[in-house]
Amino acid sequence: MSRLTASFALVSLLICSASTGARELPSASAERMQHRITQLSAFGANPAGGVSRVAFGESDIEARKYIATLMTEAGLKVHIDTAGNLIGSRAGQHSLAPIMFGSHIDSVPGGGNYDGDVGVIGALEVAQLLHDNQIPTRHALQVVVFSDEEGGLTGSRAMVGKLDASALQVKSHSGLTIAEGLRAIGGDPDRLHEALRKPGELTAFIELHIEQGAILDEEGMDIGVVTGIVGIQWWDVVITGVANHAGTTPMNVRNDAMLSAAELVLAINEIITSAPGAQVGTVGRINAEPGAPNVIPGRVTMSLEIRDLSADTIWDMFHRIEARAAVIAEQRGTSVIFQHVPVDAEPAPTDERLQHIISRSAESLGLSSKYMPSGAGHDAQDMAQIAPTGMIFVPSAGGISHSPDEYTSPEDMANGANVLLRTVLAVDEQLE
Amino acid sequence: MSRLTASFALVSLLICSASTGARELPSASAERMQHRITQLSAFGANPAGGVSRVAFGESDIEARKYIATLMTEAGLKVHIDTAGNLIGSRAGQHSLAPIMFGSHIDSVPGGGNYDGDVGVIGALEVAQLLHDNQIPTRHALQVVVFSDEEGGLTGSRAMVGKLDASALQVKSHSGLTIAEGLRAIGGDPDRLHEALRKPGELTAFIELHIEQGAILDEEGMDIGVVTGIVGIQWWDVVITGVANHAGTTPMNVRNDAMLSAAELVLAINEIITSAPGAQVGTVGRINAEPGAPNVIPGRVTMSLEIRDLSADTIWDMFHRIEARAAVIAEQRGTSVIFQHVPVDAEPAPTDERLQHIISRSAESLGLSSKYMPSGAGHDAQDMAQIAPTGMIFVPSAGGISHSPDEYTSPEDMANGANVLLRTVLAVDEQLE
Repeated sequence: MSRLTASFALVSLLICSASTGARELPSASAERMQHRITQLSAFGANPAGGVSRVAFGESDIEARKYIATLMTEAGLKVHIDTAGNLIGSRAGQHSLAPIMFGSHIDSVPGGGNYDGDVGVIGALEVAQLLHDNQIPTRHALQVVVFSDEEGGLTGSRAMVGKLDASALQVKSHSGLTIAEGLRAIGGDPDRLHEALRKPGELTAFIELHIEQGAILDEEGMDIGVVTGIVGIQWWDVVITGVANHAGTTPMNVRNDAMLSAAELVLAINEIITSAPGAQVGTVGRINAEPGAPNVIPGRVTMSLEIRDLSADTIWDMFHRIEARAAVIAEQRGTSVIFQHVPVDAEPAPTDERLQHIISRSAESLGLSSKYMPSGAGHDAQDMAQIAPTGMIFVPSAGGISHSPDEYTSPEDMANGANVLLRTVLAVDEQLE
Repeated sequence: MSRLTASFALVSLLICSASTGARELPSASAERMQHRITQLSAFGANPAGGVSRVAFGESDIEARKYIATLMTEAGLKVHIDTAGNLIGSRAGQHSLAPIMFGSHIDSVPGGGNYDGDVGVIGALEVAQLLHDNQIPTRHALQVVVFSDEEGGLTGSRAMVGKLDASALQVKSHSGLTIAEGLRAIGGDPDRLHEALRKPGELTAFIELHIEQGAILDEEGMDIGVVTGIVGIQWWDVVITGVANHAGTTPMNVRNDAMLSAAELVLAINEIITSAPGAQVGTVGRINAEPGAPNVIPGRVTMSLEIRDLSADTIWDMFHRIEARAAVIAEQRGTSVIFQHVPVDAEPAPTDERLQHIISRSAESLGLSSKYMPSGAGHDAQDMAQIAPTGMIFVPSAGGISHSPDEYTSPEDMANGANVLLRTVLAVDEQLE
């Protein structure tokens, strides 16, 4: 029996175990994961107990070095691509397109210790278990830490060829432009094409992440099987009336932009909530001009955001809102216009085979799971454009996100890593 | 017949004429008034055709010098009181408390050529006619140009003893504090008590002003008999919900402060408009926090202003709004609090005798007139605290105010001056 044949036999045995029961595979260490989360939290620690580890800043750079040492410890070969993505690679037995898994470690200003971090520490846990237990895979594996997720999915966008030149000139929270930031972390914005992964160049991409609503937490579920990342559309809504003296203009001759705006805010909520489905619609920003207590607003500007897994649903909701706005405008002697804001976030359904594998993996571990969309954006939505993509959610206490109050228990993190391990191995077995 | 007796006879004759018909009294010159308005408009002229003649600025100082020359031309003795009020005095035949009339010439930044100015030019026209036609009065007369009306009724407040020390430290649009500004125009903030007029020290105060809504203009009326200056109350309204991720938080678990705010804006409008009366209520300012399109607002702050001639009505409206807000807050899982903002603008009804005199004066001239409240604040509201006060409105095209687009025709200005002349003479006859 050649060494190759022997390896094949071992893999088959392992996969078989993974499919039928969890006992034969090593388990993620909740303790080690929590220890690493705690260590990682020191980089950019903020007074509220979270991190302000914005991409490209000093603490991001130092934290990436820490992650690189963990990659090495897990037997991975570390490199940084030209888009600043930190990648730890492990050879496969066959020359098959790699399986990539990971997340990010940069945070929003005033962020917490779990968003992104759990996915990276979980991916490292999987690599560590495979290494320590000398479990080979047919496919090469790549653990990835995407650059600048919070600043606009920079690393994953570059990887799928969607980061345009203008984005490079945007100033990031670090004070550096994205181009300068990429250089600061070892990338090279002039050679971004080298970071590109074409369709077919990855067998799959899998991301473990904390949920950012409280769905799992409130329902007491262990694992979310993400059905897709919702699409997002934004509009600037401009309502124009006639500014006038609030003392001398009788109520019945006013063209008050504020009243139209208020009616529209309620109409948006009613339209979004009265249709079946999980779509969400939000007015998060509003401003009245001239904005004095004693002047009737002549102009109100506000934001409108709609998210759903179906682009058709988003646009259907929008057209209903637009029609209602026209009626409100007419009745109140004002005008309403919607200016579409390009945010380039089309819905990104995950791969159904991966959904099934994740669900079965949870089941094999005795964990409860729930199919659910991701309402937040993730690097996975970019990766879904070039590879079969799966996403695993673990509970986040109270659904808190982008806050020092984020919390996911060590057990939930370990559950996520265990599901990720089984998912990677099942993909390794089932997909070419 | 002594000279005194002869004068009395003349006065009686004049008053009698004024009461029964306008023919025997001289008429205001629309041409002269327009010429003076045009001359005055040169001081602080802005590119849009109006004036930016903020109190205490160079153009205010120069314009006051111009007005002082017109006072002298009209036979008035000029002085500036310690509150910076420019006063032209004319002796009366008896030692009776003076009749004061006038307005202001300072403007808001980017203001027009009629707000305040028409009242001052009209008062000067009256003084000029009395002087040129040697018409004596029993009472002394005082033509007043109040200091810094637009910056907070500074001159009239000081005159009635309501300008407190803290107001003197406020920075005005001129860049000077009010104290510095008063010095710049010849006042003396350290001796403000000398500008004080106690109740009984004036027989009456009368102000001619442009309307600032479009009520007279739209109804084709010549003269507004002002029933009072409305009181104003302000509140800061703070609506608190829970800020959350707009993508991951399902619609049915949100505590969206924006929805409560929108419902409250509409409720305020409904409460104000459904009650009988001329009260007005306005939400002129609104802000959502954190204010991002992708975050459910956790806090919305907005202004609430209510105006009415009756303080009881204002507070009745407010209590209805407050009660409705509590229901809205409860239903939407948010809280609403109202923080009262002291603006110190109690309703100031005008004197009923003066209303009657103004109405009769208009009638005697064949002019149409209408009883109406003033929705805007005026120096007259302060003066009403110490003297019987009357106010005469003339039409303003389209009700435009605080804008270079303000316009009142020469004929309407002359109508106003003619009514003011007859009002002053009737007060001189009828009041002690």
